[in-house]
Formats: sequence, structure tokens, C-alpha cells
Amino acid sequence: MFVLKFGGTSVAHAENIKKVTAIVRAKAATGKTIVVVSALGGVTDALLRCGTLAAQGDATYKESLQALTQRHLDTIRELLPLTAQSGVLSRIMQQCHEVEDLCNGIFLLGEFSDRTKDKILSFGELLSSQIIAAFWAATELPCQWVDSREVIRTDSQFTRAVVDFKTTNEQIKQLVSNSQAQVLLAPGFVAANEAGVTTTLGRGGSDYTAAIFGAAVDAEEVEIWTDVSGMMTADPRLVSNAKPIAQISYQEAMELSHFGAKVIYPPTIQPLLQKNIPVWVKNTFAPQDYGTVIKAEAEQNGNTIRGISSINKIALLSLEGSSMVGIPGFSKRLFEALAANSINVILITQASSEHSICVGVDELLASRAKAAVDNAFSYEIEMGKVNPLVVENGLSIIALVGDNMKSHAGTSGKMFGAMGRNGVNIRAIAQGSSERNISAVIASSDVKKAVNVLHEAFFETTYK
Amino acid sequence: MFVLKFGGTSVAHAENIKKVTAIVRAKAATGKTIVVVSALGGVTDALLRCGTLAAQGDATYKESLQALTQRHLDTIRELLPLTAQSGVLSRIMQQCHEVEDLCNGIFLLGEFSDRTKDKILSFGELLSSQIIAAFWAATELPCQWVDSREVIRTDSQFTRAVVDFKTTNEQIKQLVSNSQAQVLLAPGFVAANEAGVTTTLGRGGSDYTAAIFGAAVDAEEVEIWTDVSGMMTADPRLVSNAKPIAQISYQEAMELSHFGAKVIYPPTIQPLLQKNIPVWVKNTFAPQDYGTVIKAEAEQNGNTIRGISSINKIALLSLEGSSMVGIPGFSKRLFEALAANSINVILITQASSEHSICVGVDELLASRAKAAVDNAFSYEIEMGKVNPLVVENGLSIIALVGDNMKSHAGTSGKMFGAMGRNGVNIRAIAQGSSERNISAVIASSDVKKAVNVLHEAFFETTYK
Amino acid sequence: MFVLKFGGTSVAHAENIKKVTAIVRAKAATGKTIVVVSALGGVTDALLRCGTLAAQGDATYKESLQALTQRHLDTIRELLPLTAQSGVLSRIMQQCHEVEDLCNGIFLLGEFSDRTKDKILSFGELLSSQIIAAFWAATELPCQWVDSREVIRTDSQFTRAVVDFKTTNEQIKQLVSNSQAQVLLAPGFVAANEAGVTTTLGRGGSDYTAAIFGAAVDAEEVEIWTDVSGMMTADPRLVSNAKPIAQISYQEAMELSHFGAKVIYPPTIQPLLQKNIPVWVKNTFAPQDYGTVIKAEAEQNGNTIRGISSINKIALLSLEGSSMVGIPGFSKRLFEALAANSINVILITQASSEHSICVGVDELLASRAKAAVDNAFSYEIEMGKVNPLVVENGLSIIALVGDNMKSHAGTSGKMFGAMGRNGVNIRAIAQGSSERNISAVIASSDVKKAVNVLHEAFFETTYK
Amino acid sequence: MFVLKFGGTSVAHAENIKKVTAIVRAKAATGKTIVVVSALGGVTDALLRCGTLAAQGDATYKESLQALTQRHLDTIRELLPLTAQSGVLSRIMQQCHEVEDLCNGIFLLGEFSDRTKDKILSFGELLSSQIIAAFWAATELPCQWVDSREVIRTDSQFTRAVVDFKTTNEQIKQLVSNSQAQVLLAPGFVAANEAGVTTTLGRGGSDYTAAIFGAAVDAEEVEIWTDVSGMMTADPRLVSNAKPIAQISYQEAMELSHFGAKVIYPPTIQPLLQKNIPVWVKNTFAPQDYGTVIKAEAEQNGNTIRGISSINKIALLSLEGSSMVGIPGFSKRLFEALAANSINVILITQASSEHSICVGVDELLASRAKAAVDNAFSYEIEMGKVNPLVVENGLSIIALVGDNMKSHAGTSGKMFGAMGRNGVNIRAIAQGSSERNISAVIASSDVKKAVNVLHEAFFETTYK
Repeated sequence: MFVLKFGGTSVAHAENIKKVTAIVRAKAATGKTIVVVSALGGVTDALLRCGTLAAQGDATYKESLQALTQRHLDTIRELLPLTAQSGVLSRIMQQCHEVEDLCNGIFLLGEFSDRTKDKILSFGELLSSQIIAAFWAATELPCQWVDSREVIRTDSQFTRAVVDFKTTNEQIKQLVSNSQAQVLLAPGFVAANEAGVTTTLGRGGSDYTAAIFGAAVDAEEVEIWTDVSGMMTADPRLVSNAKPIAQISYQEAMELSHFGAKVIYPPTIQPLLQKNIPVWVKNTFAPQDYGTVIKAEAEQNGNTIRGISSINKIALLSLEGSSMVGIPGFSKRLFEALAANSINVILITQASSEHSICVGVDELLASRAKAAVDNAFSYEIEMGKVNPLVVENGLSIIALVGDNMKSHAGTSGKMFGAMGRNGVNIRAIAQGSSERNISAVIASSDVKKAVNVLHEAFFETTYK
Repeated sequence: MFVLKFGGTSVAHAENIKKVTAIVRAKAATGKTIVVVSALGGVTDALLRCGTLAAQGDATYKESLQALTQRHLDTIRELLPLTAQSGVLSRIMQQCHEVEDLCNGIFLLGEFSDRTKDKILSFGELLSSQIIAAFWAATELPCQWVDSREVIRTDSQFTRAVVDFKTTNEQIKQLVSNSQAQVLLAPGFVAANEAGVTTTLGRGGSDYTAAIFGAAVDAEEVEIWTDVSGMMTADPRLVSNAKPIAQISYQEAMELSHFGAKVIYPPTIQPLLQKNIPVWVKNTFAPQDYGTVIKAEAEQNGNTIRGISSINKIALLSLEGSSMVGIPGFSKRLFEALAANSINVILITQASSEHSICVGVDELLASRAKAAVDNAFSYEIEMGKVNPLVVENGLSIIALVGDNMKSHAGTSGKMFGAMGRNGVNIRAIAQGSSERNISAVIASSDVKKAVNVLHEAFFETTYK
Repeated sequence: MFVLKFGGTSVAHAENIKKVTAIVRAKAATGKTIVVVSALGGVTDALLRCGTLAAQGDATYKESLQALTQRHLDTIRELLPLTAQSGVLSRIMQQCHEVEDLCNGIFLLGEFSDRTKDKILSFGELLSSQIIAAFWAATELPCQWVDSREVIRTDSQFTRAVVDFKTTNEQIKQLVSNSQAQVLLAPGFVAANEAGVTTTLGRGGSDYTAAIFGAAVDAEEVEIWTDVSGMMTADPRLVSNAKPIAQISYQEAMELSHFGAKVIYPPTIQPLLQKNIPVWVKNTFAPQDYGTVIKAEAEQNGNTIRGISSINKIALLSLEGSSMVGIPGFSKRLFEALAANSINVILITQASSEHSICVGVDELLASRAKAAVDNAFSYEIEMGKVNPLVVENGLSIIALVGDNMKSHAGTSGKMFGAMGRNGVNIRAIAQGSSERNISAVIASSDVKKAVNVLHEAFFETTYK
Repeated sequence: MFVLKFGGTSVAHAENIKKVTAIVRAKAATGKTIVVVSALGGVTDALLRCGTLAAQGDATYKESLQALTQRHLDTIRELLPLTAQSGVLSRIMQQCHEVEDLCNGIFLLGEFSDRTKDKILSFGELLSSQIIAAFWAATELPCQWVDSREVIRTDSQFTRAVVDFKTTNEQIKQLVSNSQAQVLLAPGFVAANEAGVTTTLGRGGSDYTAAIFGAAVDAEEVEIWTDVSGMMTADPRLVSNAKPIAQISYQEAMELSHFGAKVIYPPTIQPLLQKNIPVWVKNTFAPQDYGTVIKAEAEQNGNTIRGISSINKIALLSLEGSSMVGIPGFSKRLFEALAANSINVILITQASSEHSICVGVDELLASRAKAAVDNAFSYEIEMGKVNPLVVENGLSIIALVGDNMKSHAGTSGKMFGAMGRNGVNIRAIAQGSSERNISAVIASSDVKKAVNVLHEAFFETTYK
């Protein structure tokens, strides 16, 4: 059994859908195949924009919706012979009307709730998958369309619902064992809660759908078809010389996945990692390219590191105070305050004997973090024992990743040497004992330079 | 008002005590002076050894005690003319008998409690200060001997008592305002709780005594007289080229104070920092040397960093687990477990997206930490979501310190480059946003090499 | 300055509004008066029902809305001479259209969010107050209509917003000092957040509005006009002999306020208690009745207790286990789990040496509480040291309240004796050291009997 | 296999020891028997007094020790024929010398540490058991003397060591299976840590020793021989009509065990409860009396309750504050503060809607509790939202205990009625849902009266 997932660019329009079809046809010839598709490229953002406009009382959402509807109808007309169009055309039209009703509701209430957001966004994948299913039915690639909402069960945290794997796995297994089809086609990203209300899987949702199916059926492999020929040594938008990575370990892939490009989103790998199912990252537009295979043990290729990652929009929180010296309990209170306010910590660093502790968080959470921490230490702050939390914005984290780093003594020297010679100021550093990741906090304005000098140092020079 | 503190080597024997006397005599000519003295060099350790031997049922403690008594009597005989000896001789003899009684008690019980430890160790400073007071009385440097236990009030945490500054400051001020003496001489290290039971101030205790007096009387300056000509750029036992530091900020001094040599112990500076009182570190055996002055703002001297510090006997604790990804509350529980078990955290590091958090603690606390953390996560460990805490021993932290680092982009590169080229493997790195300290965890066996290559790179080369 | 609040029944229709008008006219003759009104009786529930129907996709909400609109128009027509109607009629009509738009939006989205709920419910008070203002303008009781949303500032916790008293008090003071009107008329219940979005004050909201105004202007007294002649010795729906209470202390009133009748909701008193402003509970339909005055010190009237209260729909949670004996930390973990899940504790009891702790909570929260506590003790439960939380539903709390109880040794005996003789089984008892409240947990099916026998014992017999 | 334990009075002197011998001889005829003995009556207190005197520098401890030694020697001389005395006399003398050495050590140090306390107190049981063993050897009741310290392994919390049951059970089983003796005789109360240092089991220690042996060998029954003919319906020192209880459940026995008389200490039952081993409480001086049997299910005897218990020296802590209303998290913080300071909670009560929570603790812990709680709420106290903790001393808890209570609706009425009629003021009440215990907090000065009126009401009247 194979699971193939095609991203938004891969199914952006009729021409690309035909490429996808060729790939699926070839694969299906070798075994039973589950295909997961994203919305037509750009549709999710367009739907989101419609809802947002409506909530703001901006009636132009109607025109945007009209254009969206037209785009789907055009795709049908390009793909299908006239005789085969009528059934799918009317189904798609009807669903576009539903989206319009929802947007009208938002417009009237002036509110775009998470529950409604999931409902509206789900149409992207529902429409794309139904159109493709109709096309395949018309081109002798018969497939069974599966409503992912009927098999993937989640809780009710709209926009980032948590999968109930027990129920989900059972339902998928039953679906597959009851099905005679050689190809099953399912919309990515969408799911439903116990009451049947539509939910979505959050960031990286369609990849996650593929991984959920793959793990549930013990797939031989999961293929993530996208528009790049695999994971790269660096974000190609930043580094023109970035090269594809042939093999990479699960751990490395998770570390690297903070790329802007976000070829893959870390939690999506989890279900596959546990079952040791390899993941291929392939290019729909260059299917002959090798791509990247993610698996438990990746071969070393002579490079010290596997890749360079960066995360933007980081805020650095620093808590300082004379009362901190040697007081057990200080860190506990800091992290308790952050946890109680659901603030995820990306990086922590407290240098020896330094009278401060430093935490990197998403910039959007910084003011909430400051309120929480200042409140938790309000008494000490009033007494002058601790300073109010200092928040610095405009920062990024840049990280070198590689399982192989631990056997190379000079990696950190080479990393900081290259940055130092190029005048990149380091605001904070963290490297943990797994030695798979060295992270440095730098100004966001230095990221492009830093990534390039590091890429040059680690991947473009012959001496090591 | 001046406060001068003389360490154990400075008052090791009659000859040195005469040097001390000359220094004090000169200072007292310029203003009212409080002198704080340690025990005669080596006496504290000898007392500790006597108690330990007695607790182990080893009767040879009696011989050691005999030798200790003899050493104090010899010092008196060398310092004082025969006619002036009898009073102090009998007082010292009587106190040595008290120590003997205590050791006999320990021997009978087979137990050397913290309370008794403080009682026994206090004799070191009590004896040395009384002998010196007698000598000064006989040499026209009249002084008032002050029993520190009557002015420094602490709680009852024996061996690391916490000062009650409110009571202490009042008592010191009253003492000084009631005194006509030009010189007050007080034993360092010792204090007493509310019930008058002897306590001690823990590590760096005599320096702390000096700082407490200095802050209470708003001294012009506090002078710490020792056997080195100031704080050094590195531990001179490791680096033969280590050089004295002329000026250093309070913050830098606290960071650097983890030297093996421990010229100064961080909390000792606190009372002075708050009042902005400068601290001089001077050499009793080379009083003409400039020494080091610790103050709020230290002049930059062209070096990127101020010094290199290292801490040995560090254990690195790593907590890993798949359930950690993006779960707020994880760090809180880790630090809560550590805090509840009074385990002080020296270094923390969690690299971006790394599925582990890394904490450096004193090696002696590592097994307690492991028990505490494994217990706190016992459920998750059983479920396989978190791995049992991994503890690595045999590690050290090496740190570069300097307020000036933040204006030099290349410091970390130079640091890790130098270590990398010399094959020093880095187990963990932390640098916080104050950019005053970069810490790296390395094998203890690499410390000497690492300190030397760093010292060479930062202090011994002309190019930057 | 006086503050008068009229509840929903008091302003249910034109006839009642005329009674209210007479009361206000009399009061205003004696001083500046702020009047706070609820929605016309039943309107809030009707609005809620419309929203709920719409969310369920039930189009009959339109008819309900139509009826609601009609009711308001009828009230105008009854109150006002034809010539004075047009202005207010068109304003009211327009606002009813806004409600309809909102309900249409809810219908389209199938979602009735808290934000929208506040928006819709606010119309009840907005409409009633505008109609009354128009009536007064036409009957020589000129008043200034105040939009409470412009003076009462809250946070954004829709349906139970928390007042920002600093801003609110300033705004009310400024409003009042700028106003020439003898009577100010404001809608109760409604407020707005910083962005001006409508919020509501939750249960007891209009009383709370009155208290907020009263405290802000340091009113001489606040009068709560309702449809009963004061607080009663017991819920009159349960006890036919229940009698009004002439005087009652703030503390007693707060304790008693758990009546089904809920004459007053405890937090509403808080702002007045702090300023020692008396609160009168009066009957719009029998203004000559004395009513109840709530103040700091209430005269004793010979009764041991002031009243009897009961709360239904209570679940009793019992946590038991052999590992609990003498383990500090057990209670902490229990309450931590409850607090982390926002479960409010109504009653706690742990008898001496009993190996269980018992907590009373709202029945609706019981299953959430069980999940939280069982999870918090999952390890101990698995080890068999603690039993899974036992939840019992179908319970009520019955409480005797009175400041005077502490001087009567026999109160508890009389209470439990009366219940015991009548076969009321006591599931748990709690009386704290303030001795102002004895609470017993009993089966809900016993409440009526229990309240009656207690009322008889404490209020209807001459011997004490 | 039987386990018999004889308390201090039972082995107070030669005459009593002969009674014990007869009991053991009869039992041993029916099966293998393990005998656990306490110190000769009064010896533990005398040893404690010696240590305390010595720590205070009072040399009269020597005379007390002399008397203690003499008492043991006299007992030997009374019990044993001259020819059999020499061996045991010299062993006992030698151990008395050891105690003297320890007291001398305490005298010299002025400190009586917990570690030394355990060492000294252990001699009470060691001496008594060795004397008895010698007597039995000489009277044809051959027995094997067992050093409990070699089989009962604990941690190092001196004076209240925690048993390591895994190691202990293995060691006891091995001991018993290797032994040919019909009677094994072991000192109660004493144990040892991993390093072999003597520890003691705390309150009720000898009973606990018997329970540990009983559970380890799956004894048929454990007999606790004391100087009363079983557990009583009330403390006989308070109530002259108190009657013995024939049968009682484990749960009831644990509840009742807070008697001043403390026939049994709750944790001592735990090991037996888990294995369902019955415990007999018997009277050494009236072996023919039935005594009390403690077992899983006790027959109901027509009484509503099983007994009345009371605990003196209780402090009631009340935390009040307006900010408490409806704030989840308040209780959690209170109990966290208490737990963090190892303060055991005996009773908790929070009546419905009462703005305070009430906690009963040991009077000795009250000031520590106040410091802890006031510190935990220091911010709220400063803001005036919470009042400083109110502590009331001079209180007692009186409790009715009985599994049968839940089937009698009138128990609480009868209880509080009886107290009320007799003018006993109730400060707080708690009854949990197990309905096995109703507790009331009253003035200590009322305890005698209250226990007597309750005893009369529940046990001495024929009507129910």
C-alpha cells in the first residue's frame, strides 16, 4: 500500500492535475494507493481572505467568491469532456453557494470564529478532491472518493484539532478493508469532531492527513509530492546554491523543518516515525528527480551538517534579577507562568553563573508572555529583586542541523567563525547535548547574510 | 571608613601577620578601619579533618588537635614578648580545650552534625583574631576586638546561614558608633542565630563578613587582601600566562568568580554592589602591586573579553521525548521537580526545535536530580512518551566573560574556532541575551587545553 | 445621589412602567437619581431563544423576532401619545432590524458565539431603556439617557466580562459631573470592551450595573426594585410561611443569595460593601412594604439565624486512598487539578483522620472534574494507592445563615436534629470558623422537606 | 504463624514478664510464633530524658542513667537463677556503657540530633528483648533472638524512618524460613538504614514492627497485648462508663485511633489491612477478657456508632478574603503552601458560599503554617484582597466514628443536639461522604463534657 500526497501547486490547475494523474496512474499499477490532495494552489488563502473581508464588513468578498467559483468551474471545463461535466458542475456549484452563505453570515455578525473558519477552509480540499475524482472517473483511473471527515476523528479545538488516533485508525482500517478500489482519493487537511462538525488539522494539515493514512494502513512508503525536488541544504529563496538532500534521518528532518519553505511540518512525521515508514519528498514537475528520502538512519555523505534552518519573528525574553542567584524555584516559576498561558518555548538558554535566563518565543506571544511573567513575579518586581521581563523583537533563530555534528569537534567554531567574520552579531546561543542542532539568535536583518555564509562554509568549500 | 579583609595565607604565621600589621597600620593612619581576618592558613581544613576523623571513630584526631593547638601557641610566642603572652596564651589554651571536648563528643556519637561543624570551624577565626588583637595591643596598634557573632545575626541553616540584614546592620552601626577605637578587628566567617548559637556564612564567608561590615557602615572601599595580585584573566594554575585584571565590573567579577582560584565568591559582592562600594583585590605579599578594582563601570582596555572561567564537576541532564514537541508545561514540570529537591541549575539550554532540554548541575546533585525528574515524569516514562533522564558526568563548563562582548560580533566564532581547531568537543552551549557570558560544556579532561587555547586567542595575540 | 434599579418584571409592560415612573418621580424630587433598568420581562430569554433557534437552523426564529418587535412597538403605543411616537418608533424598529441581521448571520453559520450572544442580548436593555426614556420625556420627567457601554469598561470575556473599575469609575464620575439632568437613565447588564465591542456583565448583571454606578458616585443608597417585598427567610416557592427579612448584613446577604429566587447575586454587592453603601430590596408592586435593607451591621431580631438557603444540582466528589494518610501535598494536587480546569469549589470537607476528601461542585462540571482529577492522580490510581474519583449527582446543599449563630451553642444540634427526626440523610457537612453558615449536603429530593422542617424549627416556633 | 506484641507495661518488670511468658508459652504450643516486645515500661522516656538533660549541659543525666542500668540489672536478677545471670548481665552492662558514652558525647556537644536520638532510644527495646530472651532460654521456652535492625530496612529519616518493604519482606521471609525455632523474639520500634545505622519507626513503632512481621509472614493473626481489654467506646480517662468494643472494622479502628489512649496507631494497621489479617487487642493482665478484634467487616451490634474519638492541641486556620469568591486556584495555592512546608492537614471545611476556608492542623505547626500561607498570599494581603491567616489555638476535634452511621439519618442531629443542650460551642464541622466520621472542632476546655454527653447519648441510653 502506498500513500501519495499532492500539494496545492501540484493541483493548481488542469495542466498540473494531468501531471499528477500520470504519477498516480503509474504508482497504482504497482499496488493499492491512497491519494491525498490539497486545495487548488492559492484557494485556501483566498477563502480565508473572503471570510476576513466579510468580518470587516467589506462587501467585496462577494467578488472574490465569484472569482473562486469561476476558477473551479474553469478547471472542470478544462479537464472533463462536456458530457462528463454536468454532475460535478452542479455539485461544485452547490458547495460554492454554501461558502457564500457562510460568508454572508460572517458579514452580518462581523465575526469570523474559528469554528466557521474551519468550515469555510474545508471547502478548498473538498472541491479539489471532488473535481479530481470526477476527472479520474472520466479517464479510466477509477477511484473511490473518501470524505476524510468520516474517518479522521478529532477533538473540537478548531483550526488546530487534535486527532483521536484510536478511533481514526479503526475507521481508516475498516474503510480500506471494505474497499475494492485500487485508488482511494481523499481531501487533505479536513477532519471532524465527535459531533460531525468539520475541523481542520492546522499547519501542514494535508501532509498530516497523508501520514495518518500511511500509519493506519502500515504503508510501504508515503510520498509527499511538492514543487521542489526534495528537502534542501538551505532555504533556496535565501541561498541560490542550496542543494537537495538525498537522505535524511527523521530527527534531522524534524529539526530542519523550520525552513521558511516548510517542506514538511514536524508533527506530520510523528505517526510515520513510530512505524518506521519512509517518507519521500518528490517533485511533481520533475518526477525523475531523486528527491529526498526521510528514514530512521540516513547515510552520511561527507558533510558535517545536513542543512541550515531558520525561524523568523522570534522574541527573546530575558528575566534578570539579583534574587535569582542560586535560588532553586526561579526557573520553575518562570516556566509555570509561560505554560499556564499556553506560550510555547522555542529556545532556552541560561549561561553558567549568568544572573538571567533567556527564552525565545513566537513574536506574537511576546506581549502575553510579558504580562504573564511580570504578573508571576509581581511581588519580587515590586521589591526590586527581579527586573520586569525584557522583550526584544525583530529576531530570528538560525540553526545548523546534523546527526553527524557530534563527531566533528570544530562545527561550532566554523559556524560562529563564519558569522563573526561577516559581522553577524549573536544575541543568544543554545546547543543541547544531543549535538544535532546548534541554534543562534540573530537580528532578522542578518538572516540572509548569515544563511549564505554558513551555506558557503559548510556546503560550498572543498576543504572541511 | 575602610574595611580590610585578610585571607588565610595572609595570616598563616607570625611573619605574615607582621606584613598584615604594616598594611593595617598604614591604612588606619588615613581613617577608621575595620579589619576582618580568616583563620590561620589551613586551620579550617585541619579543624574539619579533626571532626571527620572523630566521627569515623579514628582516635588520631587527638594528635591533629594537639598539633593545631601547638601551632597557635607557637604563633603567639613568635609574635609577642614573653611578658605579654600569658593572658592570650591562657585564653587560647582554654578555647583549644573546648574544641577538644567537641571532638570527644563527636567521637562518642559517631556523628558530625552541621550544628557542631559550625561550632568547631568557628574556632579558626576566633583564635586567629584574638591572637592578632593581642599582638596589635602589644605593638602600639591598639584595636577593639569584636565578636562577629554578637553583631551578625543569621537564621539557623548551619554551614550556610542566611544573614538577617535588618538586625545585623543595626547592630553593626551601633557597635561602630559606640566605639572609640581607630581599628576594629573581627573574625570573619562566624555569626550567630537568634538564640546565640554559632553559625557560619558558608563558602567565601570571610569576604562576606567584610562586605557585610562594609555595606553596614557605608565604607569608602572594601579591600580583600589575598595572596594574588588581583583577579586574573584565567586560572593561573591552568594558564601560565594569565595576567592580572586592573578594572572589572561587578557583573563581570560575579561571572568570573567561578574560577578554581575563587578570588571572590559572588554573593559576597551583593551588599556592596547595592551601595556601589568599590572592592579592591590586593596582594598582602606585594602590596605595591595595583591589584584589581571591582566597581560599577570598568574601563575597557582593548580586550574583547575580561577573563575566562571554568567550573568542574558538572553533570549534564538531558530530558528527551516525543511528547515534548510543542507542549507548554513540560519545562515547568522539569524545573518544578528540580526546585522541589533544592537542585540548583547552573546552565540551561534548549535549542530551537530540539526535542530535548539540557540542564547543567553540580555533579553531586545529579543522582538526586535523576530520581526527582524520573519520578515527576514517571507516568510519561512508563507510557514511553518521555525517556528516563540521561545523566552525563565528568564534564566542565568553560565560560568567556566580558561586558564588552556584545560589541564584538566575532567573539563566539573566535571562541569555538579556537576550541574546534584544537579538537575540543563541545557538549552544550549557552549564551544569553546579556552577552556577557558564553558558556560551553566540555569534557573535564579538555579543560586545561581549552582554557589555554582560549587565553592565547583572546589575550596573547596582537591581532584581534 | 440615589441609584434605583428596576428588574424585568417591574418594566414588563406599559402598566408596570407607569408604576416605576411614579416611584422614580417621587425619589427624584428628593435628589439626583440614576435609574438602571432591565429588559422588558422575558425579553432576554426570548432573544436568547431566537439566537439558539437560528443556530440550530430552525427558521422559526423569524416569527419569534417578529413577536418581540411587536411587543416593543405595542409598549410604545400604549405609553406614548401618538404625536410623540414617531421618533422612538423608528429608532426601535431600526434596532430590531439589527437583531434580525444578527440572527440571519447565526442561521447561515449555524453558530451562536459568545461574542454574538452579548451583542444580541444587549438589545433587551437598550430597547427597554430607550422606550422608558421617551416616555419620561413625554411626561415631564425629563431624563438623560446614558449608554452604559460608553461608561462601563470591561475586558473581552464575553458573557461574563470583568469590569475595569479604574476606567469605569472615572468615566461615570465625569458623566455625572457633566450632566445637568435630575434623572439619568441607563440600561443595565451591558458594557463594552476597550475596542467598543458590546459585552455583558453575566448573572445578576443589572443589579451589578446599579452597584457600579452607586459605588462610583458614592450614592446614599442603592435600591433594587423587584417583585418581592425583600429577601425572605427561605425560598417562598418551597416554604409557604417564608417571611421577609427587615435587616440583614452584607455578609449574610451574600451567604443567603444562593436562593433559587436569587434576589441578589453576591458579587453585585461587592462594590457597595467596600463603600458601606446600604442596599434596599423593594417591591415595585407594593412600594409601601418595608422591604429589606442590607448594610454593614444588621440588628439582631431574636432569631438565631437569618435565613435558609439551598443550592441544587450539586455533585459531590470524593477522593479516597490509602496513600493519603498523612501525606502533605495530596490536597494541593487535588485543588491544583480543579483550578487548572476552572472548576469552582462550592464546599469542601475532610473530617479528621478520614482517608478521603470531599468537594462539592456544580453538577455540570462534575465530569470535567473527574477527568481532571483522575488524570492528575493517574499514576497513583494505576498503582492502586488512590481510588478513581467518585462522583455523586442528584445532590443539593442546604445552608443556615446568620451572623448571630456563633453565640448560640445549639444551632447545629437543632438543625441536624430537625432533619434527622424527619429522616433527611446527611451526605456531608461543613461549617467553618466564621460560624455564619452551616452547610449540609442532602439528596435533592429531600430539599423541600428539609427547608420546611428547618424553617419551622427556626422561624415558626416560639420556644427557642 | 502468629505474631504477638507486648507493650511497655506488659514487660515493665519481672512479674509482668512472667505473665507474658505464660501467654507466649500457651500460644507457641499451637504454632510458630513471633514475639515483638517494647522497652520495659518507662524506659524510652527515661532514655529520652537522659539525652535531653545531657544536651542541656545538665550532668544529672549520669544519675538517671545509673538508675536505668540498675533497673535492668535488677530485672535480670529477679528473673534468672544466679547461675544463668552472668552472660546476660555482662552483655547488658556493656550496652548500658554504650548509652553512657552517647550521653557523654551529647553533653560535650550540647546537641541531641535525631540520628543520636534513634541510637539511644533503640537501647530500650534491645535491652528488654535480650533480657527476656535470656529468661526464656532459662525456662524451657527456647527462642531465637532476632535483631530487628538486620531485617527491617528503612530510609534515613531518623525518628520517623520509612520502611523499604521490598527488602524488608524478603529479609523477614528468609529469616523465618531459615529458622528452626518455635519462637522468635524481636525488639520492636528499631530498624536500620542501608548503611546499617540504627533508625526507629516513630510513633506506634512496636505495633508497626509486629504488623511488618505479620504481613511479611502472612500471619494468621496479629495480637497486640497491652494493659486495656481492647479498644473502648471512648477514652476511659475521660468517660468512666466507656466500654470495650468487641469487633471493629479496619476503617473504624483507624478513625478511632486518635484517642488519647492511642491503643493503636493508624499506619501500623496498613500492612495487615492489605492482607486482610485480623488484629486482636488483648490485655496482658486479663488474658481471659475478650478484647477487640479488628478486621475487614465487623458485625453491627445495634449501636449507631462504634466509638468517640478526640484530638487535642488543634489549631484552626481561617483564610478569608473578598477575592476568594469564585476564584478557582485559591484552594490550590493554600494547600500548596501548606504542603511545601510539610504541614499535615487534619480537617478541612469550606461551607457553601462562605468566603473563607478553614483548616485544622497540629497546634505545633500553626505558626509555621501562618508564615507559609501569609507568604504565599503576600501580594493579595498587601493589596487588601485577602486577610492575613487567622490562627486559633486551644481547640480540639471530637469525632463520632462508625461504618453504620450512614444508615441512620439522625446521627448528626443527635450529636449536635446533645452538645448544644450542654452548651458546647461548635467552631467548625466536617463530615465527608463516606459518612463514617463526623468531626466537630470545639474548645479544648469543653472536650471532657462533650465526650461524656455524647457517650451518654449514643451508648448509655436505651432508646435510640
